[in-house]
Amino acid sequence: MTYRNIRVGLFGFGCVGKGLHDVLHATPGIKAEIVKIAVKNKNKKRAIDPRYFVFEPQEILADDDINTVVELIDDHHVAYEIGKQALLNGKNLITANKRMLAHHLNELSTIAAERDLSFLYEGAACGSIPIIRNLEEYYDNDLLSGLSGIFNGSSNFILSKMSQEGMGYESALRLAQEEGFAESDPTLDVNGYDALFKTVILVAHSFGVFIHPDQIQRLGIQNLQRIDLEFAGKHKLKIKPICTIKKKGSGSFTATVMPGFIKSDNYLYSVENEYNAVSIEAAFSDRQLLIGKGAGGHPTGSAVLSDISACSYGYRYEYKKMKQGLVPSYSLEEDLQVYVRSPRKIPQDLRSALSISRSPKNTSGETLIGRIHRNLLKEKSKEWEEDSIFIATFPE
Amino acid sequence: MTYRNIRVGLFGFGCVGKGLHDVLHATPGIKAEIVKIAVKNKNKKRAIDPRYFVFEPQEILADDDINTVVELIDDHHVAYEIGKQALLNGKNLITANKRMLAHHLNELSTIAAERDLSFLYEGAACGSIPIIRNLEEYYDNDLLSGLSGIFNGSSNFILSKMSQEGMGYESALRLAQEEGFAESDPTLDVNGYDALFKTVILVAHSFGVFIHPDQIQRLGIQNLQRIDLEFAGKHKLKIKPICTIKKKGSGSFTATVMPGFIKSDNYLYSVENEYNAVSIEAAFSDRQLLIGKGAGGHPTGSAVLSDISACSYGYRYEYKKMKQGLVPSYSLEEDLQVYVRSPRKIPQDLRSALSISRSPKNTSGETLIGRIHRNLLKEKSKEWEEDSIFIATFPE
Repeated sequence: MTYRNIRVGLFGFGCVGKGLHDVLHATPGIKAEIVKIAVKNKNKKRAIDPRYFVFEPQEILADDDINTVVELIDDHHVAYEIGKQALLNGKNLITANKRMLAHHLNELSTIAAERDLSFLYEGAACGSIPIIRNLEEYYDNDLLSGLSGIFNGSSNFILSKMSQEGMGYESALRLAQEEGFAESDPTLDVNGYDALFKTVILVAHSFGVFIHPDQIQRLGIQNLQRIDLEFAGKHKLKIKPICTIKKKGSGSFTATVMPGFIKSDNYLYSVENEYNAVSIEAAFSDRQLLIGKGAGGHPTGSAVLSDISACSYGYRYEYKKMKQGLVPSYSLEEDLQVYVRSPRKIPQDLRSALSISRSPKNTSGETLIGRIHRNLLKEKSKEWEEDSIFIATFPE
Repeated sequence: MTYRNIRVGLFGFGCVGKGLHDVLHATPGIKAEIVKIAVKNKNKKRAIDPRYFVFEPQEILADDDINTVVELIDDHHVAYEIGKQALLNGKNLITANKRMLAHHLNELSTIAAERDLSFLYEGAACGSIPIIRNLEEYYDNDLLSGLSGIFNGSSNFILSKMSQEGMGYESALRLAQEEGFAESDPTLDVNGYDALFKTVILVAHSFGVFIHPDQIQRLGIQNLQRIDLEFAGKHKLKIKPICTIKKKGSGSFTATVMPGFIKSDNYLYSVENEYNAVSIEAAFSDRQLLIGKGAGGHPTGSAVLSDISACSYGYRYEYKKMKQGLVPSYSLEEDLQVYVRSPRKIPQDLRSALSISRSPKNTSGETLIGRIHRNLLKEKSKEWEEDSIFIATFPE
């Protein structure tokens, strides 16, 4: 095996970028060096030697001495432009921008493959948990039946603090932001979009399919209130922000991002606070669980570092499942049992979409439990969310 | 990427071998075919077409049509001979024989590297948990500080049944054997040797060092009694069969196989029954936990299948850590706090080796808690075990 010296052009020098810089200097085993760092603000004081910093993307993108671009900026539009240009200019690309990836994975992976470049993004899904590498390298056969997990540390942290310490939603959210677990825009966390972007990425590596984020059925935790957690507690259940990717027969699969009431025998039941977890189900290996920190500069930085190390020996994702044979298609044809609570009367369209099995007492609004078609839930979920209705899966 | 057609010569057709055969036929994505199966017993009735079976190893080892040997037999001496010959004859080698590997990893990996062959053994450590692949591919830098885990499903199962269902040691062991979690010789499980062999393998992939099994400090659960579990319960602790591999500064590391009393904040606390777990500690990524079934035909078979799949695209372990720079050396220079219980008086040599901090009441024998030097513990552990003394680590 030959190691290639990795000469990094880094975009962004926030929390993750800084951590990456420090740890790279502490890691002699990795043959990589940060050559230049592109930032926006010329006047900001920086923690390291100012001669590293440049302010024009082209200073990195057009520099033949740089063979790898590490993109760690917030703006997903700019991230896409930089990433695409880097690949077109023959540079490896490492990114942790899940939103950008969820929209452009197909195009960027095609360019990278055509030019035989490394295009890696382990930091974009579940922080420090090496889930993409595992799906690529280990669960690379027809036996994977699905995975489920907690992909958003911020939402999990909020629910943990609310249920364990009796905090209100707003103060738990504020605490998550103070501790640095929430994304720069917290609505992406609590509304489920952050988890949805990660789900799109993991669908590609689970089943070999690129789907658009809009195709996935999504609900957030933003309408959850203490009354929901009390109902869960009374039934010995917990509410968790769950993502599910699941094969249905051989020809189709479904993917969902929504809160769920789960029982104590669920692997995800004891995963609390900012932790992420992925439970993988595969024939024969049975069920496996991976737990780790999903957010924050250091865990994400370590995933990025691992990608840099992989670059140094020429590692590429192979997207083998796309080449192995028939890939399944996305389907919403399924009924779900859900818990629905509104601070007012439940609107007529939602009520009539439900095959109601229970009407738990609710003195301040209305709660119903029943079955609903997943397709309809997807179509109307945004509207119902805007009506302050909390919807979560409920065990059969 | 080019896929190579894998033509398998299989040695052994027990539980794992049969499972592998079935699942391979159910997995069109993997380009592999079992060509011949070598077994010992000519007269045994087989579940599949008898024309697959051969009774002389050379029928596989000398067959140019076979490019990959999968070795799933019990006898570790024979497994070594077959494995070595397979590699020397230019065939890839896949094995799940941890005992053989713990003694011959260095030699076999050297032969495989010289001849550019795949030599894979994910099934040999922690069954279905892809720990070797993860250490190879993901934690491949200086930042790994160590790992600890439950590597023996059978011992964990026995302890779970004893503490949760009040079973006695003997009946819990019998149940483990009936359920197929114990190895063919259960003493290797309960005495810690099975876990020790896995530890040797994981040390190689954690820190890039081949050590001999005899170097590792080992104690089993064979002398554990209900009184120990009661003591644990009274202190809100659990007793688990723990393996630890831990860096001490940059120049040395330690590895231990022995039972431990653990607190509820330990990641391994809730891992019960036949499950294995590995908790990996690395700077920046913090702590990660992998849980999965560690024993049984299907979980092991799935790990073997994954190795076959990896063979088809030319995957090799790279043992990168050996090449990345300085490797640490094994050290036993450390004090440990231990719980020591004897059915009689604790012998004088053990008593004087302990800096005793507590003498818990014990009406039928003697119990002491105190610090002991790890070097001394290793040197004398076999002798004390033969004296029916139960020794386990105890929290500070």
